[in-house]
Amino acid sequence: MARRTGRRPGNPDTREAILSAARSAFAERGFAAASIRTIAAAAGVDPALVHHYFGSKDQLFLAAMQAPVDPRELLPGVLAGDRDGIGERLVRTFLGVWDSPAGTAGVALMRSAVSNEWTARLLREFVVTQVLRRVLEHLDIDPAELPLRGSLVATQLVGLAMMRYVIRLEPVASADPATLVAAVGPTVQRYLVGELATG
Amino acid sequence: MARRTGRRPGNPDTREAILSAARSAFAERGFAAASIRTIAAAAGVDPALVHHYFGSKDQLFLAAMQAPVDPRELLPGVLAGDRDGIGERLVRTFLGVWDSPAGTAGVALMRSAVSNEWTARLLREFVVTQVLRRVLEHLDIDPAELPLRGSLVATQLVGLAMMRYVIRLEPVASADPATLVAAVGPTVQRYLVGELATG
Repeated sequence: MARRTGRRPGNPDTREAILSAARSAFAERGFAAASIRTIAAAAGVDPALVHHYFGSKDQLFLAAMQAPVDPRELLPGVLAGDRDGIGERLVRTFLGVWDSPAGTAGVALMRSAVSNEWTARLLREFVVTQVLRRVLEHLDIDPAELPLRGSLVATQLVGLAMMRYVIRLEPVASADPATLVAAVGPTVQRYLVGELATG
Repeated sequence: MARRTGRRPGNPDTREAILSAARSAFAERGFAAASIRTIAAAAGVDPALVHHYFGSKDQLFLAAMQAPVDPRELLPGVLAGDRDGIGERLVRTFLGVWDSPAGTAGVALMRSAVSNEWTARLLREFVVTQVLRRVLEHLDIDPAELPLRGSLVATQLVGLAMMRYVIRLEPVASADPATLVAAVGPTVQRYLVGELATG
């Protein structure tokens, strides 16, 4: 696997070797600790080739995850606007992705994460580094609370996706998005910026 | 934990034939429409034998699901006490089951439900008929709202179980139960009896 070849750029084997090395690195070390350099070394290619094929580490991660959407394209719409509405906007955007053709890939990803520890680790890293951390960094929150707040948001959004798209429990499975945004938005809002401990 | 009081195990082949017929019936027709009579007929035995082996339809369903706990033994503790605390008590009881040895069976059940449509149907029926409907019937709620409220509770509790026990996202994975009860209890409380639509 670690051999260097004279293949031309875009060679599918080379691309797949890089993606495979990236999946291992992101799952084993986490997104922050995995580097393009070590991924390139594991794939037996020059780091410049990884950048050439995939761009940034974020983009390589999305490709390795086979993520059907790039959160960086969606999050500005969530973060723009008043702070009181961020929970509802996050739920609305989340449902918009899952209700689109990209949702099929989401269901496949969730099925895989439930049965495969490595996919679970990748999904965890994806949710935290590509989505939750970006939302939370935007808000004025005690940094010590960020991990708990982020993972609470994940419990609600992943549970919503599970019941609506995988388990298909009615009426959540076929409720119109506005109903779910109104019901679940305040939950996400409280997890992001509200009171978490009871007196 | 369900005690199998006074019921003899019976012939293993006959028991398995009944359980297999029960799984099919509950998954295909749902809990309410499936009858002991049709399950017995499908298994080629007398309905009295089904009652003799498994007791009531509820008990047959729990056996068919391989449910590690009987919700009827846990729900009185959730329903007893003030209405304002029912969300927290439900979350505390839910975590108590999942944090116990029974949680292993829960993880297996969830993994199976995600990859297998029949198990998903059984899990749906279990959550709705054995847990949510019993909690909601106890509360004074517009019956038209029960299905949505029940399935919203399911999104939060299933998502909590997914992130804590299957995907193992920190810090939810190792948070102490009291922290999660304080954070998630108000969500479940609002889904059960609070305001769902925003103005």
